[in-house]
Amino acid sequence: MLVLGFPDYQEPSQRLATALNVSSAIVDIHHFPDGESKVRLPIGLPDTVVLCRSLHHPNDKLIELLLCAAQAREQGVRHLALAAPYLCYMRQDRAFQPGEAVSQRIIGGFLAGLFDTVVTVDPHLHRIAHLEEAIPASRAIALNAAPLMADFLRVRLDLPAPGPLLIGPDEESEQWVRLIALGCGADYAAGRKQRVDDRTVSIALPAVDFRNRTVVLVDDVVSTGHTLATAARQIGALGASAIHCLVSHALFTEDAEEALRQSGIKEIWSTDSIPHPTNALALADLLAQALPTPCPSRRST
Amino acid sequence: MLVLGFPDYQEPSQRLATALNVSSAIVDIHHFPDGESKVRLPIGLPDTVVLCRSLHHPNDKLIELLLCAAQAREQGVRHLALAAPYLCYMRQDRAFQPGEAVSQRIIGGFLAGLFDTVVTVDPHLHRIAHLEEAIPASRAIALNAAPLMADFLRVRLDLPAPGPLLIGPDEESEQWVRLIALGCGADYAAGRKQRVDDRTVSIALPAVDFRNRTVVLVDDVVSTGHTLATAARQIGALGASAIHCLVSHALFTEDAEEALRQSGIKEIWSTDSIPHPTNALALADLLAQALPTPCPSRRST
Repeated sequence: MLVLGFPDYQEPSQRLATALNVSSAIVDIHHFPDGESKVRLPIGLPDTVVLCRSLHHPNDKLIELLLCAAQAREQGVRHLALAAPYLCYMRQDRAFQPGEAVSQRIIGGFLAGLFDTVVTVDPHLHRIAHLEEAIPASRAIALNAAPLMADFLRVRLDLPAPGPLLIGPDEESEQWVRLIALGCGADYAAGRKQRVDDRTVSIALPAVDFRNRTVVLVDDVVSTGHTLATAARQIGALGASAIHCLVSHALFTEDAEEALRQSGIKEIWSTDSIPHPTNALALADLLAQALPTPCPSRRST
Repeated sequence: MLVLGFPDYQEPSQRLATALNVSSAIVDIHHFPDGESKVRLPIGLPDTVVLCRSLHHPNDKLIELLLCAAQAREQGVRHLALAAPYLCYMRQDRAFQPGEAVSQRIIGGFLAGLFDTVVTVDPHLHRIAHLEEAIPASRAIALNAAPLMADFLRVRLDLPAPGPLLIGPDEESEQWVRLIALGCGADYAAGRKQRVDDRTVSIALPAVDFRNRTVVLVDDVVSTGHTLATAARQIGALGASAIHCLVSHALFTEDAEEALRQSGIKEIWSTDSIPHPTNALALADLLAQALPTPCPSRRST
């Protein structure tokens, strides 16, 4: 088995190779002045290859994955896996207006056509229960970072009773905040969110007493940061003593980090699914558990 | 039949619809802050739909075409055509180094999987003779803008004998310069090019007398402009009285237009395959000839 990383995703792919105890290499990518991409893979690839790349700002990366996957097959790779700690296009899971392309299903089908196995962490699934429904690959595995996050918070926030209060900003995050809270023995609750447009949300906080509590806002993806910033301002006004946030995917578009800082959030922690200065939790061991181990017996068939 | 254009390609798609005498509409595209695209098609699509978009800076556009094509099929479109006056990824037609993905074949296969018909103009094909080899769609049609260009030059450069001299910068352009020259009764010749890297070329000019001639440099794609600028400087030093250039595809990356102007080129003419201030030749009528006409009999089957 070989892990192939990309120039924009070298360190996480090397950590994954270390966790799997296999070699790693980097795909050679050249961007032409006209916006086209050229990819070159190492020669002498083994039977099983894992492409490791997170898919934030995905369109260039998806085309490059298409080129890589086709070339890997050309070179005889029999089992091709994608480890995409952050998976793209999972939010549009239905047509909200007539004529809208359901990109979750379309991009999912595209990836399933390229890879035998797709592994990701905390994909943003709302109206479907299983990743296989979005990505009909032979193996489509959605890992949950909640146990990792619970361990992290238990050490990081070893506070006297009543301990930290974990808050999910909306209904979607409730199940997930619950898992983390149970894992680290913390109180939890979730608010309700109404999205006005890409950049504007309003939040109805849960009816709990925030006074003198250390609050951790928990979410899967932070994009513009407006959801968490809105929640943090309201929670600050209700008397919390400290507000931090813990997220799986630090997309952090535009001035997201600045928006979070200005809303009163002190610590920002994220997994390394998307490289960012706030990365505090490495996903390599979690991902490694889900990836196919080399099957020597298949090589002789 | 309906022609569907895109926000970045509205006018050429409307001209195509006019040439076909059918309706046109624009695909609604939304770009999220995280780099994902949302596409929405009009509802009530006819049996035959032509998506019209040139594919310069292609990666975003290719993913959006995937979303559009899947949605059009979802809405029952039976014949889906792509009119891409400028087609992408046609240059990498073999692996120049071991492990390189042959993107012409891979992207060609991707487009063939989406569209029944693909129509383009002057694709940059070197080592393959027919577009079908790169794009195995039911119909893959490479139109030639040479007759249009010959007509244009005949009117534009109605000079006394010996008339204009058409120069292709390299061997690849020779056959094509010949067609245009024959069409407008001009002299022609082609040089030889050696590419050092993306941005550096050297050119061996043909052994013709440039003194006091009006020279038109002809090429299919202008990207950085360095090839034509190099040729123009050399031709200027050999005594040409005026140098113009005529190209199919005005990619014009970086400071290409400025590089051409500084090399001594006076007039720059391009087709409207890629929207640019130098556009002087409309391709709509040429494209319309190659597109499927509606087949009313098929609707009743």
